[in-house]
Amino acid sequence: MDRIPILKLGRALLVSIQVDIHDRLAKALEEDLSERIVATGARGVMIDISGLEIVDSFMGRMLDNIAAVSRLLDADTVVVGMRPAVAITLVELGLSLTGVKTALNVERGMTLIGSGQYEEIEGDDAPGGGDERDEG
Amino acid sequence: MDRIPILKLGRALLVSIQVDIHDRLAKALEEDLSERIVATGARGVMIDISGLEIVDSFMGRMLDNIAAVSRLLDADTVVVGMRPAVAITLVELGLSLTGVKTALNVERGMTLIGSGQYEEIEGDDAPGGGDERDEG
Repeated sequence: MDRIPILKLGRALLVSIQVDIHDRLAKALEEDLSERIVATGARGVMIDISGLEIVDSFMGRMLDNIAAVSRLLDADTVVVGMRPAVAITLVELGLSLTGVKTALNVERGMTLIGSGQYEEIEGDDAPGGGDERDEG
Repeated sequence: MDRIPILKLGRALLVSIQVDIHDRLAKALEEDLSERIVATGARGVMIDISGLEIVDSFMGRMLDNIAAVSRLLDADTVVVGMRPAVAITLVELGLSLTGVKTALNVERGMTLIGSGQYEEIEGDDAPGGGDERDEG
């Protein structure tokens, strides 16, 4: 897989991570996400990791990076669906994901992002438009 | 990967398929989905295939199966994010996915499912950060 799909949901973007992420894929995801934030004017990025049983320090750093870039682009980052064992591992690794909000599930993540109002979706209207299919 | 994550979004369930699906995974997904439909009372199932560059006849049949089971459980199935090349391949394979609705993206899928009104489910408040757990 070259690319992880990014879905637009109201004013948020949703990424569901289901596979091990390696260097190139992480870089592609960071780039795609930042472009999509700008292109869609998204206010938040939700990263669903409910499919992951293990999160290593590489993944932890990727989440931190995404959060840092998103913040510069005026979007919050919310990690959703973390399994208890993953939370324990992250703390043991000394990665407590400061700067990343967490929520139990996508719906709570949407609330955190303040995107409850689903219809409010804007059309795309910004520079840097995406290369892939227009999701919104 | 043993399981594909199923996300609840309003009255819909969302599954993002990013990897090749083989027998056991397909069976697990069908079972998980039908259980979640019943457990959550979901009115629709969205299957995002924007991450797939190829859909073979096995995948086509799986989508048909999911749609058939969901219909029996009173939920619509909407396939979202299909790439043009995938649509062409499916037709060439003689799999035109009758019984499956399609939508360009998740937002349009939500509209099809009639789940536009996102707030309807939120019993949640908490605009501040914080980890919350309690599966929805």
